[in-house]
Amino acid sequence: MTTNSDSGVLSYEQYYPVFKAMEEHDLILNLHGEVPPAPPTDQDIAKQNATTVLTAEKSFLPTLLDLHKRFPKLRIILEHCTTAAAIDAVLACGPTVAGTITAHHLYLTIDSWAGDPFNFCKPVAKFPSDRLALMSAATSGNPKFFLGSDSAPHPQSRKLAKKTAAGVFTQPYVMQYVTEVFNRVGRLDRLAGFCAEFGRAFYRVETSAEEGEIVMIRRVVTVKDVIGEPDGVVPFRAGERLEWDVIWK
Amino acid sequence: MTTNSDSGVLSYEQYYPVFKAMEEHDLILNLHGEVPPAPPTDQDIAKQNATTVLTAEKSFLPTLLDLHKRFPKLRIILEHCTTAAAIDAVLACGPTVAGTITAHHLYLTIDSWAGDPFNFCKPVAKFPSDRLALMSAATSGNPKFFLGSDSAPHPQSRKLAKKTAAGVFTQPYVMQYVTEVFNRVGRLDRLAGFCAEFGRAFYRVETSAEEGEIVMIRRVVTVKDVIGEPDGVVPFRAGERLEWDVIWK
Repeated sequence: MTTNSDSGVLSYEQYYPVFKAMEEHDLILNLHGEVPPAPPTDQDIAKQNATTVLTAEKSFLPTLLDLHKRFPKLRIILEHCTTAAAIDAVLACGPTVAGTITAHHLYLTIDSWAGDPFNFCKPVAKFPSDRLALMSAATSGNPKFFLGSDSAPHPQSRKLAKKTAAGVFTQPYVMQYVTEVFNRVGRLDRLAGFCAEFGRAFYRVETSAEEGEIVMIRRVVTVKDVIGEPDGVVPFRAGERLEWDVIWK
Repeated sequence: MTTNSDSGVLSYEQYYPVFKAMEEHDLILNLHGEVPPAPPTDQDIAKQNATTVLTAEKSFLPTLLDLHKRFPKLRIILEHCTTAAAIDAVLACGPTVAGTITAHHLYLTIDSWAGDPFNFCKPVAKFPSDRLALMSAATSGNPKFFLGSDSAPHPQSRKLAKKTAAGVFTQPYVMQYVTEVFNRVGRLDRLAGFCAEFGRAFYRVETSAEEGEIVMIRRVVTVKDVIGEPDGVVPFRAGERLEWDVIWK
C-alpha cells in the first residue's frame, strides 16, 4: 500500500485482482478506514495538512470513493465510522457501500479519552459535532448504517500501560448502551433496524425461526467494574447504572 | 467566574479590584488560559462550537485580550501556550503581556498523547501546525516568549490509572530537551534568551555574579526510565538518548 501524495488516494492497485474476484464471488470487503498517521514532515506541517489521529479517517475517504467507483458491485463496509465526513462519504456511495457505527462512538468525544485509557480506541472518538452525525445516521432508519460493536477485550494491564492498548470493551452490555441512546432521542422504533436487521440484510443472512430473539426491558443494571481474573477486562461505563436490560426469548 | 455566552468572554468582574491592586503593586498575573470544557449542550453541538480539550485554550483568548485592555499596565503571563492562536494573541498585546512555552510542547502533538499517558498534560498538545508556531515563537528572539517548564512529577501509579493525572515531568532534563530542538533548527544563538534571559527580564530579577551559570555541552545522556522508589516518576522521553548535557559552573 502506497500513498499517491498528489491525489491523497492510497494506492491499492496491487489488490485490484483480489477485489475483482471478491466482487465476482460476492464477498464483502471490510475496511478499517484510516490513513495511518506518520510523523509529519516539515513540509506537511508548513502546509498544515499533516495527518493526525483526528484526520486519519477523513484522509482515507477519497480511497473509499475511488474503490467504490472502480468496483461498483463490490460490497464494502466502512467499519466503525467516527466522523461526519465518513457518514457523508457512505451516503455519497451507492447501495453496495455501508458503514458500521459502534455503541461507544455514540457516547464518546475527544474529551472522553483525553486522560481515560479505557475510552481510548482507534479510530479515536472525535468532536461533539461528529458524534451528533453518528447519532443522526444510526437513528435515521437508513439501512446503509448498522451496529458494528468493534468490542475489544484488552486486559487491564494492557490499558494501564505506557502504550495504551486501543479498544473499548462493550460486548456484555452492547444492546443496553445502544438502547439507552436511542431512547434518549426518542427513536426506539428504529433500534431493531440498526442493531438486528440492516446488518443481516447487507450480509444476506436469513433469519431463522429457531434463533429466538432478545427483548429490551426497562430495568436498572450496574455495569461491572471488571470482568475476569486476575487481569480482568474493564467494560465501557464500568460502575455506571444502565437503564435497560436484555432478556433472551 | 461566569461565562458571557454572547461575547465568549469569561467574566472575571469580581476580581477586577484584585487585578487593579496587582497592577498598582506591580505584581504579575499568571494565567492557565483554558475555558474548562463542560459537557456541551445540544445547541452547542448543533452550532459545532462546543468547547473541547482542543479548543479550550483558544476559547480563553478573548478573555486575555479583554483583561489586557482593562488593565494595560498589569503584567500578565499566559502560561504554557499550546496553540498558534495563543501565540498570535500574545503578539497582539503590548509589552506587559508575555507567554511561556514548555519543553514538552516543543515536541508533542495530539498523536503523542493519544495512547501514551506519560505525554498527557493540560493544556493538551495540539496539531503539528501549532507545534510549529510554538517553535517559531520560542526561537524568534522575541522577549515576549520564554521557557516555563510546567514540569509535573506525578508518580507512575497516578499516570497508569483509570483517570490519567495530567502533566509531563521534564525538570531533570529540561535544558537538554530545549537545547536539542533549538539545535535542530539552527538556533542555539537564541537559546540563552529563551531559557535564561527573557523570563528574568519580565520578572525583573537581576542577575548576580555569585549565581554561577550552566553550560550546555554535546554529550550523550540517556534519560532514566524512572526516578525514585517505590512509585517513581517517569521522565519525558524516558529511556531515550539525548544529545546534550549540562555542566554547572
